[in-house]
Amino acid sequence: MGEKDFSDRALAGDPSTSSGSSRAESRDDDSLSFVSRDVFREVRSGIADPVARAEVLADLCRINTLFMIMQAGSGHIGSSFSSTDIITWLWTEYLRDPNGGSKDADVYFSSKGHDAPALYSLLIALEKLDFSLLPKLRQLNGLPGHPDVSTPYIATNTGSLGMGISKAYGMARANRYTGRKGRVFVMTGDGELQEGQIWESLQPVANEKLSDIIVIVDHNKFQSDTAVAAVSDLGPIEDKFRDFGWEVRRGDGHDFNVLRDALAHFETVTDKPKVFIADTIKGKGVSFMHGVACGDQTYHFHAGAPSLENYVKATRELIARVNDRLDSLGQRKVALESAPLPVRLAPKAPEKIVLAYGDELLAMARTRKDIIVMDADLLSDCGIEAFKAELPERFIECGIAEMHMVSAAGGMALRGLLPVVHSFACFLTTRANEHIYNNATEKKKIIYVGTLAGLVPGGPGHSHQSVRDISAIGAVPGLIAFEPCSEKEARLAIRWAVEKNPDSTYLRFVNVPIDLPYSMPADYSLHVGRGVTLRNGTDVAIIGYGTILLTNAWKAADELAKQGISAAVIDLPWLNRIDDEWVKTLGAFGHIVTLDNHYLEYGQGVMIGAALARTGVRSQLSPIGLKEIPACGSNADVLAYHGLDAAGIAKVAMSRTAVKS
Amino acid sequence: MGEKDFSDRALAGDPSTSSGSSRAESRDDDSLSFVSRDVFREVRSGIADPVARAEVLADLCRINTLFMIMQAGSGHIGSSFSSTDIITWLWTEYLRDPNGGSKDADVYFSSKGHDAPALYSLLIALEKLDFSLLPKLRQLNGLPGHPDVSTPYIATNTGSLGMGISKAYGMARANRYTGRKGRVFVMTGDGELQEGQIWESLQPVANEKLSDIIVIVDHNKFQSDTAVAAVSDLGPIEDKFRDFGWEVRRGDGHDFNVLRDALAHFETVTDKPKVFIADTIKGKGVSFMHGVACGDQTYHFHAGAPSLENYVKATRELIARVNDRLDSLGQRKVALESAPLPVRLAPKAPEKIVLAYGDELLAMARTRKDIIVMDADLLSDCGIEAFKAELPERFIECGIAEMHMVSAAGGMALRGLLPVVHSFACFLTTRANEHIYNNATEKKKIIYVGTLAGLVPGGPGHSHQSVRDISAIGAVPGLIAFEPCSEKEARLAIRWAVEKNPDSTYLRFVNVPIDLPYSMPADYSLHVGRGVTLRNGTDVAIIGYGTILLTNAWKAADELAKQGISAAVIDLPWLNRIDDEWVKTLGAFGHIVTLDNHYLEYGQGVMIGAALARTGVRSQLSPIGLKEIPACGSNADVLAYHGLDAAGIAKVAMSRTAVKS
Repeated sequence: MGEKDFSDRALAGDPSTSSGSSRAESRDDDSLSFVSRDVFREVRSGIADPVARAEVLADLCRINTLFMIMQAGSGHIGSSFSSTDIITWLWTEYLRDPNGGSKDADVYFSSKGHDAPALYSLLIALEKLDFSLLPKLRQLNGLPGHPDVSTPYIATNTGSLGMGISKAYGMARANRYTGRKGRVFVMTGDGELQEGQIWESLQPVANEKLSDIIVIVDHNKFQSDTAVAAVSDLGPIEDKFRDFGWEVRRGDGHDFNVLRDALAHFETVTDKPKVFIADTIKGKGVSFMHGVACGDQTYHFHAGAPSLENYVKATRELIARVNDRLDSLGQRKVALESAPLPVRLAPKAPEKIVLAYGDELLAMARTRKDIIVMDADLLSDCGIEAFKAELPERFIECGIAEMHMVSAAGGMALRGLLPVVHSFACFLTTRANEHIYNNATEKKKIIYVGTLAGLVPGGPGHSHQSVRDISAIGAVPGLIAFEPCSEKEARLAIRWAVEKNPDSTYLRFVNVPIDLPYSMPADYSLHVGRGVTLRNGTDVAIIGYGTILLTNAWKAADELAKQGISAAVIDLPWLNRIDDEWVKTLGAFGHIVTLDNHYLEYGQGVMIGAALARTGVRSQLSPIGLKEIPACGSNADVLAYHGLDAAGIAKVAMSRTAVKS
Repeated sequence: MGEKDFSDRALAGDPSTSSGSSRAESRDDDSLSFVSRDVFREVRSGIADPVARAEVLADLCRINTLFMIMQAGSGHIGSSFSSTDIITWLWTEYLRDPNGGSKDADVYFSSKGHDAPALYSLLIALEKLDFSLLPKLRQLNGLPGHPDVSTPYIATNTGSLGMGISKAYGMARANRYTGRKGRVFVMTGDGELQEGQIWESLQPVANEKLSDIIVIVDHNKFQSDTAVAAVSDLGPIEDKFRDFGWEVRRGDGHDFNVLRDALAHFETVTDKPKVFIADTIKGKGVSFMHGVACGDQTYHFHAGAPSLENYVKATRELIARVNDRLDSLGQRKVALESAPLPVRLAPKAPEKIVLAYGDELLAMARTRKDIIVMDADLLSDCGIEAFKAELPERFIECGIAEMHMVSAAGGMALRGLLPVVHSFACFLTTRANEHIYNNATEKKKIIYVGTLAGLVPGGPGHSHQSVRDISAIGAVPGLIAFEPCSEKEARLAIRWAVEKNPDSTYLRFVNVPIDLPYSMPADYSLHVGRGVTLRNGTDVAIIGYGTILLTNAWKAADELAKQGISAAVIDLPWLNRIDDEWVKTLGAFGHIVTLDNHYLEYGQGVMIGAALARTGVRSQLSPIGLKEIPACGSNADVLAYHGLDAAGIAKVAMSRTAVKS
């Protein structure tokens, strides 16, 4: 589930375009290459042998998968490549009207979801998705980073792990009730098997003898950047599935004959669900991207776009193999199309608040022996790689098992330790929601750290855009939620959480590194529920939290200044505490704009609004925040779409604020 | 986890007292009986053979467990009795300084938690808990319905299922890090094994070779009221545990020699965690309470207090066996003490909104074939027993597997059905929190029904008092949350959810049946975000939702009227939608009191407050709601404790409202 590359061409102004492509005889080292629709048509109709055809198609799809990920600037190569052969076979040779409209159509979906680029690439090759979507991965109105049913031929929304088999159960029960005959094929990851819901769902499927459910485990031996065995070993997975009542086959997930045989066997089993454990290779198809499990060494092609050099090398290897194969089949070789390389504008001196947080935590841990760091397979996104390297005896990798991690933290806190628990905000606050509450009722101190919070990065899509976490944990008693807007505030926050706050803390972090237009007051210190003015103003107060909101608030204030409106920008990092005395000072402003990197319902703006009413402050109030499910796209596009860019904020601020004459 | 008996002597005025006991030579059929401290001392010191001693102690504890449950009016007999022998052996013969203060003390806790009466009874017998607590089960400042660390010798908070092994993992890792040697013993239920977190936690424990963790599965073959095998069969549990890397023993959980041998064997295993599958009998010790698994027949002694007749019969059987055993051991027989039977005042003509809801749903389902009802082992508390009986082909029992249920509902909705999903509010909105959100992003209609919402019944304690669910799911897009305050409104609500609302709905129900002082207007119909005035008034508006709040608001208005203050009582059943035009009408009141059967943070009162600020209504605002973890106790005590009784509401309403002169 990791999301490594948060650089975003669009956030910095998006000077590139993804339109326009020109035919190139020889590939250029500063352009991207893709397989055209005509080449796919030629290959699909020209090769008679199904296995040979699937082999060539799969590698051609890999070329386009790489192209999509390079266009997007992010995406999961390793897991897309390990699953490509399987889906190519299923969709071209096996499934009946997959995800189609006929009564007995088969259903296919990936529960892990982050292999979406591979499926998109295949659907484009099969002309089930429009070819114009090829450069639109993770773009607004394009192809979401994780699957969404708004895309044709996508059966269900995934991206948060472990839900797939339960969904298949629902689909199969519905088919049984309505008299449909379609089968339900579910791809899962292997790291995904660490999620408890997988095991919660297996037995009910077997008890109901839902033999129309076929699960394929893409067993590529890696999760995020590390070997599954090093993170949280799975044990004997074949035996496990068998004991949960499933028919099991295991074999090479890159050998179409093996896959064919397993599927044929499954057709003979009518009283059990079935699972094929596919032994696969992460990054399969590009030799230097192949994951070879050796201890906890890092795998480098999980989530980000590759370097241009690696991209070119990979594409050359793939097209060379394709053409060798075509040659051996007596078919003519194919050429790739080219498209310009997107230009990315990196921020100049970005604040990296997650790393600053991790650094400050490590500094404290050197002297405070009670600090234990826990992680759910996202350490590099949580700023705790250095902690693990320096204090491995106090680092606990829990794998993709958020519930277990949070309850285990509760157990540690009861024994006098101070656990600091990490995951993406979207998973931590929701998958382990009840567990955080259970811990809170024991009144022992725990620090929860949720990264990747908010709308951006906008590429991964709504499963990862955590815009509901303030609401989800805001009412947990004794848990104070805080989002820093700078490295300085991030350091203050974790120090306050460890040293000052007697209760538990939830720290919410935006991961996108950006250049900040503001700086914190030199003598700034934290006071629960009180905001800090980053920019003075008199007409309107724009109040928010975190780097993205406050940067855009600042830029909006610049715009407003040009209109003669003096806007204050106020950082209120406290997400579920507000100091009524401080609120009363807001009465100085005729108009208050609240910003939420979150749904409007039960976000910070509602807390501020209620406090204004409670304290009798009579200022006009204009809340900005999400009113609908977040769009997927470049950071700038997504922020603009939801009115949280500078222009959107300025517009609302102006709507009720009198211009000085 | 079911909670059957919501009648509450305290809610109706609590005329009884639990103090005062008198020695009775012969037991009286209208009094309660208990085992005195002296008898326990006599037995503990008088019987030399450990097995014989444990047998007698266990049955004496059962007598006191029954006494406690009769005093409380509710509590889990079946599961307490099936586990009594095991804990008696552990705590009297095996554990080292259990839950004590020494460095290498063993830890014991029950993950299922609802067997708490058995443990309390034993701790009282062992004089680890003060004897005065015996009549204080589920009473304020007494013994919570589910375990809480505020009680001496309680190691961790449980009551929501599946967390125990993860907690043990945290404790054992902490012990390893800090150099302590104590072992961690965890009791689980068997139905509890349906929770995915159990399986999520097993492999990490084995991977870490945490051989100090010993799990005992109280395999009594029943969950709530039905056989586990009928709800969601567990499959070969010994093999499953083995495949997850555990050392397994299985045997009679009521045979102390078997238990002793298993524990002795476990001491020889130093590289694995261990599990003892204890074959037990639900209700063990009282012959007519023994659960005998036969299909899905109902077991009658899961959660409520027994009838007086059954109570007397059960106690007689237990004391007779004890005295026979003492006699055969050459010990003198013991007599029981007696205490008066608590008097319970039942409401006269209570509204049963959950049953009304279920009835209306069933009526619609007779013609709407797309309605499917799903349940997580709480059907009788969710008003859907009649549905199951009449439309079994459209009733899906998921077992204690809330995540699976909700994701499966998502799968069914994608196939065109309308799932109506049931559990207690506390579990549904938190354990399946991310799953509800995932479904919401697919924009298919699903109806979620959470019962047992709010502070009362106050007996089960904070694991079951759902006072955080509005916050937890309030920001789910396209999910409208609603709590009815009468049978009429409950019927309107489910009909609106099925027939009118194009989106998804969360229905929140208080389960306690009470006499309502108000009635809904005859022409009442639902309008999203708009309240309905139940009682006219001019000085202050008291706004809330649900039967408990509005009944107490009404009674507060009666009190206020005596003070010359005219209070309106307004039902706003919409928990995360508010209509700004309607809000403006509140400007007619100088003072507005909002009531939350929920934490103040991110409850309805905050939504109302923000709406007042946004719309420019200048009324004074006084929110009432929870500021701390809910107290456990009788309904009346708990409501008063949190200021949500009539007196508490009247006091706040008066604080800012001018008395008419």
